[in-house]
Amino acid sequence: QTVSSLKKPLKQNEPCKRLALYYHDIMFNGTNVANATAATVANETRLGDFKFGKLVVFDDPMTKDAQLSTPVARAQGFYFYDMKTDYNAWFAYTLIFNSSDYKGTLNIMGADMMMEETRDLSVVGGTGDFFMARGIVTFRTDAVAGAAYFRVQMDIKLYECY
Amino acid sequence: QTVSSLKKPLKQNEPCKRLALYYHDIMFNGTNVANATAATVANETRLGDFKFGKLVVFDDPMTKDAQLSTPVARAQGFYFYDMKTDYNAWFAYTLIFNSSDYKGTLNIMGADMMMEETRDLSVVGGTGDFFMARGIVTFRTDAVAGAAYFRVQMDIKLYECY
Amino acid sequence: QTVSSLKKPLKQNEPCKRLALYYHDIMFNGTNVANATAATVANETRLGDFKFGKLVVFDDPMTKDAQLSTPVARAQGFYFYDMKTDYNAWFAYTLIFNSSDYKGTLNIMGADMMMEETRDLSVVGGTGDFFMARGIVTFRTDAVAGAAYFRVQMDIKLYECY
Repeated sequence: QTVSSLKKPLKQNEPCKRLALYYHDIMFNGTNVANATAATVANETRLGDFKFGKLVVFDDPMTKDAQLSTPVARAQGFYFYDMKTDYNAWFAYTLIFNSSDYKGTLNIMGADMMMEETRDLSVVGGTGDFFMARGIVTFRTDAVAGAAYFRVQMDIKLYECY
Repeated sequence: QTVSSLKKPLKQNEPCKRLALYYHDIMFNGTNVANATAATVANETRLGDFKFGKLVVFDDPMTKDAQLSTPVARAQGFYFYDMKTDYNAWFAYTLIFNSSDYKGTLNIMGADMMMEETRDLSVVGGTGDFFMARGIVTFRTDAVAGAAYFRVQMDIKLYECY
Repeated sequence: QTVSSLKKPLKQNEPCKRLALYYHDIMFNGTNVANATAATVANETRLGDFKFGKLVVFDDPMTKDAQLSTPVARAQGFYFYDMKTDYNAWFAYTLIFNSSDYKGTLNIMGADMMMEETRDLSVVGGTGDFFMARGIVTFRTDAVAGAAYFRVQMDIKLYECY
């Protein structure tokens, strides 16, 4: 029998793998080369008062705890602000694991609706230990220090594991 | 028995969900803050005469009809022009639904070969009511008003629904 | 019986389709409009000495052999550099096929860890002859000529074919 579409019973509360990590974004201010992990590559436009269009490239540490301890992964990619009436962002990036626990990458994209308590982005692919993975990453802002630093808890839930 | 790859009988004309919406892109010209929904964040280069490299960030309304009526979703993301010899673009964005019909997001990327009558991009993931969705979005240019405005019909066809 | 997650026996060495192609990136230097296939749209920042943040848009030929012969596909998208301590990049792009062999696109994203001999990115979707495809692309740098040109072998392995 031929079926034309798939409806599999995936359950949102039963991922096949789950990792909760903290993302630390330390903005380059022109002088903090040693510490900075992210830099502005295109300035905000004058469309609204919430940095619309500001584009940031990052190579950010991912840690197990909220403290900025030894990273267990790197997050490499970019985000930009994209709303006139509030702070709101859009992300695309790769999580790179190279530890005794995991070697491989996860590729992620989606909207970061910062005014929401939590927001979901898509894990659209993976390599290495995460070969062909798919899933969801739930963002929760954990700390903000003006324009200098912010920290996001990223709760990574994979629903396709191979 | 072990199989090493999948060949499932998906049919292109039988999506498990389908939504046809209109995307409205209203460029910021420096003065139309109230109406504009998109802004240039990196200017075109001098490689050819078709705006090669011009990068635009948008937070665009999606409507059910071609008229710019009450949006049923937002499209947040970016596009850039990328051809020397004709207008051609590349998109990555998120459709954000927050209505009584749907709550959730769809994440989309692909080439917008504007010289073609229609062109297909990929739905690479989804969240909320579109949890783990995949599919195709078919673009068809519906209206263009110089550099100020354009409208694209986006025919969203999901083939993986959960 | 309901299962909450999938663990299918995909084998990394048995893709359902495989294509090895060469990507040629010829940078625009302000004068080589006829030959150039890529242009800088945002300049590098001063975060480190490895072009952190430099953003390049490309419409690059893909060939069967290492020589820059008749393209069998185009690669349209962007990359940017994103490391303070070495050259490292991040790519998102579409492979566009329009030949007697294949008509359709493949959408790809991921980290290009240039210091590694090979690195894997994700094929996150496809259209046309590659309808709904997923897989892995393995990058291997094949040639570099300063800032003017580089060539990467892209070994495309699809594990979901429809």
